[in-house]
Amino acid sequence: MSTPQPETKAEAESLVPRFKLERVLNQDQNGRRISLLGSIADMPALITLERAAFPTEPELVSLLLKSLINTTNLGANDIYRWYLANRSTESSSSATGVLSASSATSSLSIIPDFKLNLIYPCSAQHIRKYSAQRVRMVTETPHIYSTHIKPYITGQRAAGRLDWVFNILEGRTEQEDVIARVDWDSPSNTGFLLLPDLNWDRKTVEGMHLLALVQRRDIWSLRDLKKKHIPWLKAMREQIVAAATAKVFPPGQVEADEVKCYLHYQPTYYHLHVHVVHAMLEAGTTQSVGKAFGLGNVIAQLEGMQGDEEAGMHEVDLHYFLGEENDLWKKCFGQLKKGGAVDLNL
Amino acid sequence: MSTPQPETKAEAESLVPRFKLERVLNQDQNGRRISLLGSIADMPALITLERAAFPTEPELVSLLLKSLINTTNLGANDIYRWYLANRSTESSSSATGVLSASSATSSLSIIPDFKLNLIYPCSAQHIRKYSAQRVRMVTETPHIYSTHIKPYITGQRAAGRLDWVFNILEGRTEQEDVIARVDWDSPSNTGFLLLPDLNWDRKTVEGMHLLALVQRRDIWSLRDLKKKHIPWLKAMREQIVAAATAKVFPPGQVEADEVKCYLHYQPTYYHLHVHVVHAMLEAGTTQSVGKAFGLGNVIAQLEGMQGDEEAGMHEVDLHYFLGEENDLWKKCFGQLKKGGAVDLNL
Repeated sequence: MSTPQPETKAEAESLVPRFKLERVLNQDQNGRRISLLGSIADMPALITLERAAFPTEPELVSLLLKSLINTTNLGANDIYRWYLANRSTESSSSATGVLSASSATSSLSIIPDFKLNLIYPCSAQHIRKYSAQRVRMVTETPHIYSTHIKPYITGQRAAGRLDWVFNILEGRTEQEDVIARVDWDSPSNTGFLLLPDLNWDRKTVEGMHLLALVQRRDIWSLRDLKKKHIPWLKAMREQIVAAATAKVFPPGQVEADEVKCYLHYQPTYYHLHVHVVHAMLEAGTTQSVGKAFGLGNVIAQLEGMQGDEEAGMHEVDLHYFLGEENDLWKKCFGQLKKGGAVDLNL
Repeated sequence: MSTPQPETKAEAESLVPRFKLERVLNQDQNGRRISLLGSIADMPALITLERAAFPTEPELVSLLLKSLINTTNLGANDIYRWYLANRSTESSSSATGVLSASSATSSLSIIPDFKLNLIYPCSAQHIRKYSAQRVRMVTETPHIYSTHIKPYITGQRAAGRLDWVFNILEGRTEQEDVIARVDWDSPSNTGFLLLPDLNWDRKTVEGMHLLALVQRRDIWSLRDLKKKHIPWLKAMREQIVAAATAKVFPPGQVEADEVKCYLHYQPTYYHLHVHVVHAMLEAGTTQSVGKAFGLGNVIAQLEGMQGDEEAGMHEVDLHYFLGEENDLWKKCFGQLKKGGAVDLNL
C-alpha cells in the first residue's frame, strides 16, 4: 500500500463547491460570520464563512470603491443617504460608472454585500466624529470626583441638559416608546420606566437592549449610590428583570437569567439609568470593562463596604476609559496628566 | 426662484461613483467598517462602508455559497483547511464549479471578500463547538462559592490541569514567548511573567493582548484576593503597566494610560492571571461586563471593604455569565435552577 499523498491546494479548493448545506449552526460577529453544517461526498463537513476585513491602503480602498455595483439607495434625510451594494467581478475599469439595480439579474441583488452611508456635503464636525478617537484609561479618585467631576455634573444638570429625560419621565414626550412604568410614584422610590435603547431594532430577542430610567431625581450616577440604597437597588433590580422578561416579548421568550444589567461610568447623561440587555447580545464597547459596571456587582461592593449608611461609591477609586475628545479628558484628566489647570466649567 | 426638487433615488445613486477618496478616517468593527473622507464635485463627502450581515435563510446561504469564486486555499492542517474567496456577479448557475485563482483578472483577487474555513470530515464535537451556545447570568453567593465552586477548583488543580502553567513558570516550555519576567523570585511575592495572548497577532499595537501570569501559586482566582493583598496587587499592577509599555514595543508606542488590566471570573484556568490589553483593542466578549473585572476596580473594592486583613472577595456575591455547555452551568447553576443535586466532582 502506498502512503496517501498530501492533499494539493487544487484538491482542497475543489472540496468547497461540493459542500451541501444541511443547516446554519450559528451566526455571530454582528452577523458577519456564519457556521454551516453540511456534507461533502456523504461525510459531515463544517464551513465557517466570514466577511473579510477591508484594506486600508488608499489605492486598494479606491479600487474597492470603483468595483461597487448595484448601489441601491434605500433612503435619505437631508445630507444623509444610505445604500446597499455589491462588488463587480469585472475589471475595475469596466465597472466604473453606475450600473442600475435592474442590471443585477444574478443572486447579487438578493444578498447585498455592503452597506454604505454617504454624508454629503459633510462638515468638520462629521469628520471629527468619524475619525478614530484615541481612548485613555483614567483613575478617578474620590478627591478628583469631589473637586472636579461632581461640580461638572452639577453644571451639566443646571444647564438644562436633562430636560429631555424629565420630559419622558413626566409623560410629555416619547410615550409611545415607553415599554413599562413600574412602581410609579411609589413611596419607596423604586419607580422606573423602561425604554428601548436607540441601538436596538426592537425586534431581535437576543439583541434586546433596554434602558431603565429611574423616577427619582437625586441619583445622578453610580457615584451617588450609598449603602442606604442597597434595599432600593435590590428591589429595583428584581423589578427590572421581571419587566424585561414579561413586558417586552410574550412570556417565555426571555428568561430571568438571560437579562444582564449594568451601569455606565461615565454615563452619557447624569440621571441614573440602568442598561438592560439580553445575555446573548454581542458584547461591544457598551458592555466593556472600564465603562460598564455590573449592577449586581455594584450592589455587592456596597454590601461589603465599611462605614455607615452614608458610605458609598463616592469614596472609591474608579478606573475607566475616556475618549480624548471627551471634555472630561480635554479639560480634566488630560490636564492633570500634563500638570495643567483643570477647568471643567469653561 | 423655484423650490429645489427633492433628490431622486437615481440622483442619490449617481453620487457614489463620483466620490474621490482623500483618506481613510477610521477602521473598526474588526476591520469590517471603514470611514472615508473624500469629495464629490469639490465638496467634502464622507462615506462609511461596511460589510453586510449574512443571510441565515438556508436557500439564501446556499445561493451565497454557489456564488463564491476565487476560492484560494491558503493552508491546511489535517482536517482543517482555510481559504480566501470572492463572489461572482454572474448568475449562480454559471458560477457553479471552481474558477481557478488565475481567472481572477480583476481587482477581486487583490481584495478578498471572504475568509472560509473548512473542517472535513468533522465530528460531533466540532458541531457542538460551532453551534450557538446560550449563556446564562448567575449569582455566585459566598455560600455557593465555598460549598461548590471552591472544591471544584481544588479538584481541577489536583487533576494536573495546571501543569502547562507550571511548565511556563519554571522555564520548561514556551520560553521563546515570554516577553518579560518581572520581580522574579522576589521576597515580596510580586513576581510575574508576561506572555502574548493566543488571540493577538503579536504585531498590531492597538490589538495588544498580553497575559501576566503571577509567580506565586496560592492565588487561584479573583475569589482568593483579600485585603492583605492590596499592597501586592497595587505594586504588581504598576509593574504590569510598566512592562507592557516598555518591553513589548519600542518605548513611546504604548503609554501607561493606554493599558487596561482585568481579570476573568470564571477564568479558563485557576492560576491568577491578569489580562493586559491596549485601551484601543476592540471590546468583545473577553472584556465584557459579567466576565471581565477591572483590576483597578477590584483593588478599590478591597480597599473599601469592611473587616480585617483576611476579609476579601470570597465574601461577596459575584454576578457573571456562563455558557450552558460549561460544567459549572450543567452540574451546578443549572441544577440549582431546577432544584437538582449539584455534583461538580463527577
